Amino acid sequence: MRRIFLSLCLLITTLWLSAQTKELTIEDAVIGQYRKFLPENLSQPSWRNATNFIYTEDWEKIVEANIKNDKTNVICEMKDINTELAKLSIPQLSYLYGLNWIDENSFYLQNENYIFTYNIVEKKISNVVTLPENAAQVFYNTDAKAVAYTVENNLHYIKIDSKSIAITSETNSGIVCGSDYVHRQEFGIDRGIFWSPNGNFIAYYRKDETMVAEYPITDYTTPMAENKPIRYPMAGEKSEEVTLGVYDIANKKTTFLKTGEPREQYLTCITWSPDEKYIFIAVLNREQNHLKLNKYDAKTGELLKTLFEEKNDRYVEPEKRLHFLKNTPNQFLWYSERDGYKHLYLYDTEGVLIKQVTKGEWIVKDIITFDIDEKNLFIYATKDSPIEQHAHKINMKNLEMTKLTSDKGMHEVYISTDAKYFLDTYSSTEVPYSATLFSMDNKLIRNILTAENPYKNYTLGNLTIGTIKAADDKTDLYYRLITPPNYDKTKKYPVIVYVYGGPHAQLIENSWLGGASLWDFYMAQKGYILFTVDNRGSDNRGFEFESIIHRNCGQNEMKDQIKGIEFLKTLGYADMDRIGVYGWSYGGFMSTSLMTNYPEIFKVGVAGGPVIDWKYYEVMYGERYMDTPQENQEGYKKASLLNQAKNLKGRHLIIHGVIDPVVVWQNSIMFVEKCIEEKVLLDYFIYPTSEHNVQGYDRIHLKRKITQHFDDNL
Amino acid sequence: MRRIFLSLCLLITTLWLSAQTKELTIEDAVIGQYRKFLPENLSQPSWRNATNFIYTEDWEKIVEANIKNDKTNVICEMKDINTELAKLSIPQLSYLYGLNWIDENSFYLQNENYIFTYNIVEKKISNVVTLPENAAQVFYNTDAKAVAYTVENNLHYIKIDSKSIAITSETNSGIVCGSDYVHRQEFGIDRGIFWSPNGNFIAYYRKDETMVAEYPITDYTTPMAENKPIRYPMAGEKSEEVTLGVYDIANKKTTFLKTGEPREQYLTCITWSPDEKYIFIAVLNREQNHLKLNKYDAKTGELLKTLFEEKNDRYVEPEKRLHFLKNTPNQFLWYSERDGYKHLYLYDTEGVLIKQVTKGEWIVKDIITFDIDEKNLFIYATKDSPIEQHAHKINMKNLEMTKLTSDKGMHEVYISTDAKYFLDTYSSTEVPYSATLFSMDNKLIRNILTAENPYKNYTLGNLTIGTIKAADDKTDLYYRLITPPNYDKTKKYPVIVYVYGGPHAQLIENSWLGGASLWDFYMAQKGYILFTVDNRGSDNRGFEFESIIHRNCGQNEMKDQIKGIEFLKTLGYADMDRIGVYGWSYGGFMSTSLMTNYPEIFKVGVAGGPVIDWKYYEVMYGERYMDTPQENQEGYKKASLLNQAKNLKGRHLIIHGVIDPVVVWQNSIMFVEKCIEEKVLLDYFIYPTSEHNVQGYDRIHLKRKITQHFDDNL
Repeated sequence: MRRIFLSLCLLITTLWLSAQTKELTIEDAVIGQYRKFLPENLSQPSWRNATNFIYTEDWEKIVEANIKNDKTNVICEMKDINTELAKLSIPQLSYLYGLNWIDENSFYLQNENYIFTYNIVEKKISNVVTLPENAAQVFYNTDAKAVAYTVENNLHYIKIDSKSIAITSETNSGIVCGSDYVHRQEFGIDRGIFWSPNGNFIAYYRKDETMVAEYPITDYTTPMAENKPIRYPMAGEKSEEVTLGVYDIANKKTTFLKTGEPREQYLTCITWSPDEKYIFIAVLNREQNHLKLNKYDAKTGELLKTLFEEKNDRYVEPEKRLHFLKNTPNQFLWYSERDGYKHLYLYDTEGVLIKQVTKGEWIVKDIITFDIDEKNLFIYATKDSPIEQHAHKINMKNLEMTKLTSDKGMHEVYISTDAKYFLDTYSSTEVPYSATLFSMDNKLIRNILTAENPYKNYTLGNLTIGTIKAADDKTDLYYRLITPPNYDKTKKYPVIVYVYGGPHAQLIENSWLGGASLWDFYMAQKGYILFTVDNRGSDNRGFEFESIIHRNCGQNEMKDQIKGIEFLKTLGYADMDRIGVYGWSYGGFMSTSLMTNYPEIFKVGVAGGPVIDWKYYEVMYGERYMDTPQENQEGYKKASLLNQAKNLKGRHLIIHGVIDPVVVWQNSIMFVEKCIEEKVLLDYFIYPTSEHNVQGYDRIHLKRKITQHFDDNL
Repeated sequence: MRRIFLSLCLLITTLWLSAQTKELTIEDAVIGQYRKFLPENLSQPSWRNATNFIYTEDWEKIVEANIKNDKTNVICEMKDINTELAKLSIPQLSYLYGLNWIDENSFYLQNENYIFTYNIVEKKISNVVTLPENAAQVFYNTDAKAVAYTVENNLHYIKIDSKSIAITSETNSGIVCGSDYVHRQEFGIDRGIFWSPNGNFIAYYRKDETMVAEYPITDYTTPMAENKPIRYPMAGEKSEEVTLGVYDIANKKTTFLKTGEPREQYLTCITWSPDEKYIFIAVLNREQNHLKLNKYDAKTGELLKTLFEEKNDRYVEPEKRLHFLKNTPNQFLWYSERDGYKHLYLYDTEGVLIKQVTKGEWIVKDIITFDIDEKNLFIYATKDSPIEQHAHKINMKNLEMTKLTSDKGMHEVYISTDAKYFLDTYSSTEVPYSATLFSMDNKLIRNILTAENPYKNYTLGNLTIGTIKAADDKTDLYYRLITPPNYDKTKKYPVIVYVYGGPHAQLIENSWLGGASLWDFYMAQKGYILFTVDNRGSDNRGFEFESIIHRNCGQNEMKDQIKGIEFLKTLGYADMDRIGVYGWSYGGFMSTSLMTNYPEIFKVGVAGGPVIDWKYYEVMYGERYMDTPQENQEGYKKASLLNQAKNLKGRHLIIHGVIDPVVVWQNSIMFVEKCIEEKVLLDYFIYPTSEHNVQGYDRIHLKRKITQHFDDNL
């Protein structure tokens, strides 16, 4: 075995006090993390004006604080809102949640099928809109005082005190208007309805999936089981056809943008120009290697210009809409990975690149805001550490970058309306939660809250985050190691490797519990070492790091995981004859890959909702990383666990949600069949009413089942 | 615990020689019983004439033997048939099997889609009929020299050297003509085509199931999973409507018998009168408690007469067609349980009961034949022992009954054409197979074959069959006990109870291996005690014994099984803390019932294809025993294992075939769901391409899985 190039830094070691006595229960482990053990924190913080910020308490009060002193006062109580609601026969609120502030005294809120505005000073409700009970995808435009929403597969809108109007009236359920479930929500798609800035137009996705094959999903809870098929475009097969309609509220007419052929393309990053004249779409070809940023006339639907194009041999993945400047409304920020890292580019609406705003071997995670005159841009970035998130200020003129947040960890900041102050909230492996007020010139104003350790009475294991080298012997990979409480280095402990390994996820971060599930600590209490490596392919490390999986899913990821195993060996106290592996979804693909490709290393496995063969996966995600089965026969063959089933030696438990619409059940069922053919024993379990994840109280059952499997066999 | 009323008799104890050394493998245990370890035997024996009998050897030769001496000679070889087939370009035979003797020199045979007649003296093939490749339900009438058959849902017939004719041409796949799958093959239905005796008419079932709900069955082996629904009438729901068509070959017209309303009824025991004028149908109401034996005019379809009726508060279950006498063609034998035991009644075709032919607290299992002048009837009956089958001769005049077979065991006899001799073949727990020639006056002519013990080189466990008292403390129940080889009475051994428990099955019989699976002996070799009780509800013990399950499935059966557990305790060497239970189908219902109703007794369970709630089961079988869910709410509630899931404490493995069309998958899936709701852990496995049973090589996998479950947990 090659020498392990251990990174010099064991970045963070948090040694929990071990004098404590309480032990986690399985219920704690599964549902306690975000309930019973949620660190004290500010809920829904925001700035009311230049000097005062607000947050909710106990989900029923809005508390106002200020920059000057410690004083707080309650400015709104849910019971007052409920008193008003009762007068209007609108259902009572149970939580004060989902506030959409219109100005410093009023917000609008949706409660069941009602939308209303509440003024906290006058304590009055106004602008009530009543939607049909089955309304979904509700978008309120405060300028238009109107709501766009869907009922089943059609789009409607309603203006306050008017009757609702059907914008579409498709009778074929395979044609879906206004839904957020377009392109299977890849490419950052989170909505299907796009109000124009001033509320004169409603743009919306129209998805025609009548040509997509129906995939059977059985509902067994009905008296007689019922097939409730979904449209599921499998990699290489016929996919959906999406267009963008623009409804003109004044003349009640819809124009479709001339997005043209081929019809199987991706319409992403839908953005209105501030003047409502244009719509910008990042049109990506089905092959996902060629993007055109197109500008359309919103009135005529004509394609006016392709502002620029982006190409990549592997893939181009647009994920964020254009961010227009308010004071220079012909300029916008564009996220691109074109230089290898996700950075911001300032363009004008004729396609001229004004400047690359950020640059370096790190990524921009998000735009926070601009200041009022747009001299400074605030962003989150990974400049300091890929496992941390810090806020930075960028001078838009000279691009000078100033870090706002200093403590190590994952920060979220709330910038005052005049950008003179910010509330910095964060957690790290050492700090459960902290909220501190700073002035923009980085002077500490006041610590608002520092949460105490919610596990102070519990004996948790030790959490260590560090780096090892990837299988290329160059790239740093982060690992997380949780050891049993009071472990004895002279003894040997069984190991559970928790793995995900796929793109768009990063399991290890410098936040409270280090990105781990509390179940990891529960297992550590039972005497296991819990170990995780974010292999190449995972998130926040740049395009080369992620896209190494292209056409070859699983292969390099596994090699990196094996580097993790080699590292474990160097610890001395890991029992190398008792190594388990567990993962879900891509992680289920990984755990099954590891169990079958490295049967001499992994003794016990658990895979939930695993992709077993990428041919059973869908077009959008699947073809981005694997191309089509026709184009990449070798890659599909190598990744197919149907071909590896014969190598399984350990005790592997596969778990699947019966109505999983993401990784369809066929994956694990066909793996079972292959194991039977290959005379290989396997463990299997199902969650009959679960989709891709097992949620709610069923999740306690799931984790008991998984725990039992390791306890029985590892 | 009450004193166990142990039957005085431990009927049979077979102590296997224990000096042997070989051990069974799991492959032996699963597929060896009827292959490698099949005792030597006469294959397909029959009488060629009054003095000579024949059988096949090595599946490729027909050997003739005789009553006079030891001499045998080969009268037909497959290779000669194949030589002739080759000349006609008909596929070669691989086995000489399925011979239908027409006279002493010729038989007809179906090979793939060809039917032909072969004369063993002339060594010539004649009367070749070529059927379509997808022909099914093939019935040859030697008088008509014609074949009736189905292609998909339609009935056809073809006369030698003529073109085929479509008798039906239904375009709706929900209307099925000529299929044996009518009334889900309950009521002894084994065919859907009924040639009239002289071949002038073809009667056939027409099943209209268009009104029966479609039940989704998913085929996961296709590139994209496909729903291939079946028509499944669930208890209490709309059922199929069946009629009987009569096709007149001469005038090519079909007449439907006027079986009338209500259309949801059962047409059973379809029988032609010898003169082809009438068709008799035992018409049973959907409630299955009122049978009418109706006589219809085959030409006009008119109901001529109801010969007699049978009613029962529990159920009436007709299962055998009428047996007409040749010399008195207006008389027939009718099987009925009307006096509590299945006996034969002689009727005339006007419905006059001439006499009850058999009587007593035992049952007639089958009619063997009459002698030529029909003075004597030969039957199989359980008169001597319910776990044995003996042949008897009955004088039709005075009803005197003479037992033909003397050795204990399960006999099959072959009576010579003049009824002066018979070949007696049998096996028992002590005799693997024996074939002996007797004269009808019970003189031994000659032993033809006594097979040697195929396990002579193996160390098998001890097999004991005995009786205990049922939970009523009166009724004898048979048990089978298999102990580990060389077991030590001073030690304790874990127990696996193998259970079926439902009607129409009897697990314990005095035949080779005692009715047990070789896997039982394999498990005994691993140190388990294998134990089985045929509880009340099981077969061959009369109506009261069986029908105690009526409206109350599971309840009395469980009580009897617990009597078995009490008996095990008296042995002293059964480890009462390590009792497992395993069953399939009704047996899966039973094992799950026992695991949940008696969690303090049963530690480990296995249930295959279990009925979990009778509301998920079908109309025909389900309503016979449980009535409808509407009529028997209490019984359904008590039997529902969904209600019992919360009580499960032990390790229970449920296994289901994914495409099970009998006990639909919904049963076990909903049990899993209920266990999740009730916070109960469960083990689960599926066989993706299996129907109600797991067959072929997959069965080895199944039994390894089950073995592993007991090894891991018991």
